[in-house]
Amino acid sequence: MNFNHREEHVDDGMLLIQANLDDMNPEWVSYIMDKLFDAGANDVFVVPIIMKKGRPGMMLNVLVPEERLSVMEDVIFGETTTLGIRYLHASCHRLAREFQQVQTKWGLLTIKVGYHQGKLVQFAPEFKECEQVAKAYSVPLKMVYEEARLQFMQQQKNASS
Amino acid sequence: MNFNHREEHVDDGMLLIQANLDDMNPEWVSYIMDKLFDAGANDVFVVPIIMKKGRPGMMLNVLVPEERLSVMEDVIFGETTTLGIRYLHASCHRLAREFQQVQTKWGLLTIKVGYHQGKLVQFAPEFKECEQVAKAYSVPLKMVYEEARLQFMQQQKNASS
Amino acid sequence: MNFNHREEHVDDGMLLIQANLDDMNPEWVSYIMDKLFDAGANDVFVVPIIMKKGRPGMMLNVLVPEERLSVMEDVIFGETTTLGIRYLHASCHRLAREFQQVQTKWGLLTIKVGYHQGKLVQFAPEFKECEQVAKAYSVPLKMVYEEARLQFMQQQKNASS
Amino acid sequence: MNFNHREEHVDDGMLLIQANLDDMNPEWVSYIMDKLFDAGANDVFVVPIIMKKGRPGMMLNVLVPEERLSVMEDVIFGETTTLGIRYLHASCHRLAREFQQVQTKWGLLTIKVGYHQGKLVQFAPEFKECEQVAKAYSVPLKMVYEEARLQFMQQQKNASS
Amino acid sequence: MNFNHREEHVDDGMLLIQANLDDMNPEWVSYIMDKLFDAGANDVFVVPIIMKKGRPGMMLNVLVPEERLSVMEDVIFGETTTLGIRYLHASCHRLAREFQQVQTKWGLLTIKVGYHQGKLVQFAPEFKECEQVAKAYSVPLKMVYEEARLQFMQQQKNASS
Amino acid sequence: MNFNHREEHVDDGMLLIQANLDDMNPEWVSYIMDKLFDAGANDVFVVPIIMKKGRPGMMLNVLVPEERLSVMEDVIFGETTTLGIRYLHASCHRLAREFQQVQTKWGLLTIKVGYHQGKLVQFAPEFKECEQVAKAYSVPLKMVYEEARLQFMQQQKNASS
Repeated sequence: MNFNHREEHVDDGMLLIQANLDDMNPEWVSYIMDKLFDAGANDVFVVPIIMKKGRPGMMLNVLVPEERLSVMEDVIFGETTTLGIRYLHASCHRLAREFQQVQTKWGLLTIKVGYHQGKLVQFAPEFKECEQVAKAYSVPLKMVYEEARLQFMQQQKNASS
Repeated sequence: MNFNHREEHVDDGMLLIQANLDDMNPEWVSYIMDKLFDAGANDVFVVPIIMKKGRPGMMLNVLVPEERLSVMEDVIFGETTTLGIRYLHASCHRLAREFQQVQTKWGLLTIKVGYHQGKLVQFAPEFKECEQVAKAYSVPLKMVYEEARLQFMQQQKNASS
Repeated sequence: MNFNHREEHVDDGMLLIQANLDDMNPEWVSYIMDKLFDAGANDVFVVPIIMKKGRPGMMLNVLVPEERLSVMEDVIFGETTTLGIRYLHASCHRLAREFQQVQTKWGLLTIKVGYHQGKLVQFAPEFKECEQVAKAYSVPLKMVYEEARLQFMQQQKNASS
Repeated sequence: MNFNHREEHVDDGMLLIQANLDDMNPEWVSYIMDKLFDAGANDVFVVPIIMKKGRPGMMLNVLVPEERLSVMEDVIFGETTTLGIRYLHASCHRLAREFQQVQTKWGLLTIKVGYHQGKLVQFAPEFKECEQVAKAYSVPLKMVYEEARLQFMQQQKNASS
Repeated sequence: MNFNHREEHVDDGMLLIQANLDDMNPEWVSYIMDKLFDAGANDVFVVPIIMKKGRPGMMLNVLVPEERLSVMEDVIFGETTTLGIRYLHASCHRLAREFQQVQTKWGLLTIKVGYHQGKLVQFAPEFKECEQVAKAYSVPLKMVYEEARLQFMQQQKNASS
Repeated sequence: MNFNHREEHVDDGMLLIQANLDDMNPEWVSYIMDKLFDAGANDVFVVPIIMKKGRPGMMLNVLVPEERLSVMEDVIFGETTTLGIRYLHASCHRLAREFQQVQTKWGLLTIKVGYHQGKLVQFAPEFKECEQVAKAYSVPLKMVYEEARLQFMQQQKNASS
C-alpha cells in the first residue's frame, strides 16, 4: 500500500520568521499557531524566553517558503502584539515520505514512513487515527501506538523475508 | 498628538548573535543584558537550553545591525564566560510607530501605536508610565493598563465617527 | 523469568526538598545530581525558573525518605551555593515492578515492567543495556528499543494465548 | 445578569499529584491532559524539567480533591509511562465567580468575573466565545477581546455612576 | 568584622503559594514580583509551564510565613489575573549567615557567608555592590566578583594559619 | 606552560542545523548528543519548545562546518524520529585559547584561557580534572574550582608584577 509518495529533497528557499512577544495574552497562542498553519506555514512553534527586565516572554517561530512571507506577516501583525518581526534564510532537507496501512484488532491504521537515501529510517502511527481508536474503544492511547508499531514491524519482517 | 513617527520598513543588514553559556553565574545575566542595550542592541533575550552532559545552560541572543557586531562582541567577551559566539544574518521588518497620548483620571498616559500598511494593528500603554502611576496612586498596575486602553479605544471610535 | 519483585505500595514518609539556585555555575549540576543519587535520593531533577530581578535560575528538586533529609542537606549545602532549602511532605505511590528478559538478535535484553492493581500497565527496555547493544553492534538506539518492545509484546501474546 | 454564583472559599482537601516523565512520547501529552480534565481534575499542567543524565523531561501536575486520587492514578498509570507518582497536600483559595454578559457588535459575549472579599478584582472574556466570533466574522481575536473588555468596563462605570 | 549574625534554624511554619497564570500580560511579572517582596515574601519565582490547550503559562511561586498568607493573596488577586491560588505547607532550613568585608583595589566589598553546623560552606560577594563598582570603575562585573572572592579566600587562609 | 595555542579567528562556513522533535523518547537525547559530538559537531544543544497542538517538544541544535552536514544528517535521521531538518548559515568568532597549569594542594590542574584581541578575557578550570580531584579527595567540587581560580589569579598577578 503506497499513497502520495514524495522524493527526498532540499528546499533552499525557506524562511524562519521570529517574533518576540512579551506583552501578549498567552491564551491566544494556540489560536494564532493554528491560524499560521491554515495560512500555509510548514511549521510553527513557540520558545519560552527571558526578555528585557527579566520578563518571561515567548518567541514565536514560523517556518515558511519565502513567497509566503507577507501572508505570515499579515497574520502575525494582525493577531499578535508585536511591533516587528525578523526572518532568517533557511534550507530544509525533507525525507521521502509515504503512508502505509497496517491491520490491527481495531481496523486499519496509517503509518507515516520516512526514507533517507532509500532506506527506511522513520515510522510513526498517525496521531489522529490512534486518538480516535483510543476513544472509540476506550483503550489507552499508548496501547494503540504499541499495537500499530508491532503490526508494522512484523509486516516489514515478512516483506523482507 | 503625534511625535517621532517612523515609516514601516525592512532592514536587511541585521545580525542575530548567539552565545551559549554553561558555566556563568546566572546572577550576572540582567546586568549584561542592560549593558548590551546600552551599547546599542536592538533586542536582547535569553533562551534556557540543555547543553552537553545535560547541563542547564543559557543561550544569549543579541539582535543588532551588522556595523555594531564588534561593539557587542567586546561586551559579550568582556562580561560573559564564553570562548566563542556565532552570528546569523537576519532581516527585520518593523512597523510604523507613533506615540499618542490619552487623558486618564491620573493624567496623560502615552500609548505606543503600530501601523502595518497604514492600518492600526497594535497599541499598548507605555510600561514605565503605567508603573509610575500604579505606584503613585497605589492602584493595581492592571487597572492602569485597562483604563489607558479604554481611553485609547474610545478616542479611536470618536475619531472614526 | 522474574527477579526482585516488589509490591505496589504507598510511602507517606517522603520529602520533596527544593533549593533555588541563582548564582551557581550550571556546569556543576549533573555532578551534584549524581552525588545526591549516590547518597540515596529516590529522584533528583532540575526546574528552570525565573528569579528575582529576572535572573534565570534553577530549582533543584530532591525526593527522599524523611530519614535521609540531613544526608541530602549535607550534599546540597556542601556542593551548591544555596543559603537555605525548603522541604514539603509528600506521599509516593509506586507500582509493583519486575524485570523480565527477552531474546533479541543481539542477545537477552531486560524489560522493566510495572503493574497497577495486578495489571501490566508499563514496560520499558533498560536504557543502559540498549545503549550498550547500539554501540557494540553499531545500530540505531531506537532500533534496539523497537526490537526489544516487539519481542516483549509477542512474548506477552504467546503467554496469554 | 448573573448565573452560577459561587462564594469565595478555601478548600483544604486538595492534592497536587506529580509524575516525572522522561521516556514518554510528548505527542501524547495534550490527549492525557484532556483525559485528566474529563476525569474531574481541577487543573492539569506540565513543567519542563531536566532529569537524571541530563534528560529533558516533563513533570505532569494534577490538582484534584483527595477523593479523586485513585481515579487520577488510573489515568496516569494507564496512559503515561511512569512507574510511580507522588502527591502533596494543598489548600485552594478560590474567588467568588460569576458570569456576566456584554453586548458587542457581534452579539452577546460572556465575561467571567472574580470577586475577592466582595470586591471585583478579575474579569476576562470567555476564550471559546471570542474564538468563535473571531472565526465567524474574520476579525483578529485580540480585537474581540478588546471590544468585550471595553464594553464590560463601560457597563461597570455606568452601573457605578 | 561581623554584623547581624543569625543562627542556623528550621522554620516549619512556611507556605509555598502557587498561582497558574495563562492569560496575563508577562510584562507585569517583575513588577508583581517586586511588590510581593515589598509585602514581605521570603522568595518569589516564576516557573514556565504548559497549561490546558497547550497554552504557555507561568506558575507564580511565593514562599512566605503562614501569617503573611492574606497579605500575599491581596497582592496576587489584586495584581494578577488569577481566579484562585493554592498553597502547600513547607519547612525552611536556613544557614547561619554573616556579612564580612574584604579590602579590594576599589575599596571595601561585602561578602555574604553561610555556615552549616558551624562550618563555612558558602560565600558570595554582594551583587549590588559589585554592580556599583563595575559601573563606577568601568571594569567587567565578573572581574569584580573574582577579585572579591580572591581577597576573601586569602583572608580565610591568613586567619586559619 | 603553554600547549596547543590557537589564533582568534572567524569561520564563515558554519551551519546551525535544527530539528524539532515532538514524538521522540527524551531518554535518547543525551545518547544522540554524544553521538553528534563524536561525529564532529562543534556544539550540540537542546531547546525546550511548544509545538503544534500544545505539544512539549525539543528542538535539537547542531553547530557544524558546512562540509560535515551530511554526516550530521545521517546521525539525526538515523537516531531521532524527525522527518526533516533545517539549517541556517552562521559565522563563528572563536577566541584564541590556550591551556595553562596551576599548582594546587591536590596537584596540577589545567585552566583553559581565552584571549580577545590579545587580552586575557576568560579563564576556567577544566571540569573533568576538577571532578576527578573532588572525587579522589572527597572535597566539594566548588572548593576545587575556587582553589584552581585562586591559584591562577595569583600566578597572573605575580607574572604581571
